[in-house]
Amino acid sequence: MKKLILMLCAFFAAGAMTSAHAQFAKAEDAIKYRKSALTVMGTHFSRIGAMVQGKVPFDAKAAVENAEIVANMSKLPWVAFGEGTDAGDTKAKPEIWKDGAKFKAAAEKLQAESGKLVLAAQSGKEDAIKAAFSATGGACKACHDDFRSK
Amino acid sequence: MKKLILMLCAFFAAGAMTSAHAQFAKAEDAIKYRKSALTVMGTHFSRIGAMVQGKVPFDAKAAVENAEIVANMSKLPWVAFGEGTDAGDTKAKPEIWKDGAKFKAAAEKLQAESGKLVLAAQSGKEDAIKAAFSATGGACKACHDDFRSK
Repeated sequence: MKKLILMLCAFFAAGAMTSAHAQFAKAEDAIKYRKSALTVMGTHFSRIGAMVQGKVPFDAKAAVENAEIVANMSKLPWVAFGEGTDAGDTKAKPEIWKDGAKFKAAAEKLQAESGKLVLAAQSGKEDAIKAAFSATGGACKACHDDFRSK
Repeated sequence: MKKLILMLCAFFAAGAMTSAHAQFAKAEDAIKYRKSALTVMGTHFSRIGAMVQGKVPFDAKAAVENAEIVANMSKLPWVAFGEGTDAGDTKAKPEIWKDGAKFKAAAEKLQAESGKLVLAAQSGKEDAIKAAFSATGGACKACHDDFRSK
């Protein structure tokens, strides 16, 4: 029985790996994709930043739209950091693959903070948006500090 | 009175232009952003393509998730084709700015077809997904044929 369970685990693990690999034909495709998702996320995050910093007038509707894009994009890049995507046109540090658990936690932190940013934007309260913007930006920075080369 | 209306139109037109420009500090930022949005869109569209072509097993949940990302991304690139973003690291043809109405119609066609792709995916019917995938792909191709250099 134990043997059977172990066999099934191995089967599903292999299936999961195949499936993750199959999403990108080449490592360079994965790298291009994750950079693209992060570029779109960063662009819309900086739109909220411009409001928070008073560079553009506060616009509640635009804040929600941008926050929703940030939250949607925050889910995407991580699957593209698979094995074999550490070399090429990327600033990804080896620590991503050396300490996968920490990287995963950083990715999840960003997604959680982005979700809160949407709620704050929906509240229409500038103070709440500023606080959530700051927390989300902190999640960006923490991950860049640990896992992205300068 | 007519003069006042003309002045107001000029004022709002200038405001709209400033606002569109203000979204990207530099032309290269706009180009990088729109290419990124299109890369993310294309990646998720091709995931549905792999199902439609039988390269991976049909997965109704994954079809919906991918279609929603395609539909969300289909709204984004167009604002980044502003004046002055025709030169640089881009395959955009001059026709985009010469025939703005046709380009706008092509962009709207893609957004409409992407919306139908979400509905088809939500139906869970493979035939409906195939048809909507094909129509959406046709909208991609038509725009590339007219507005993107090889």
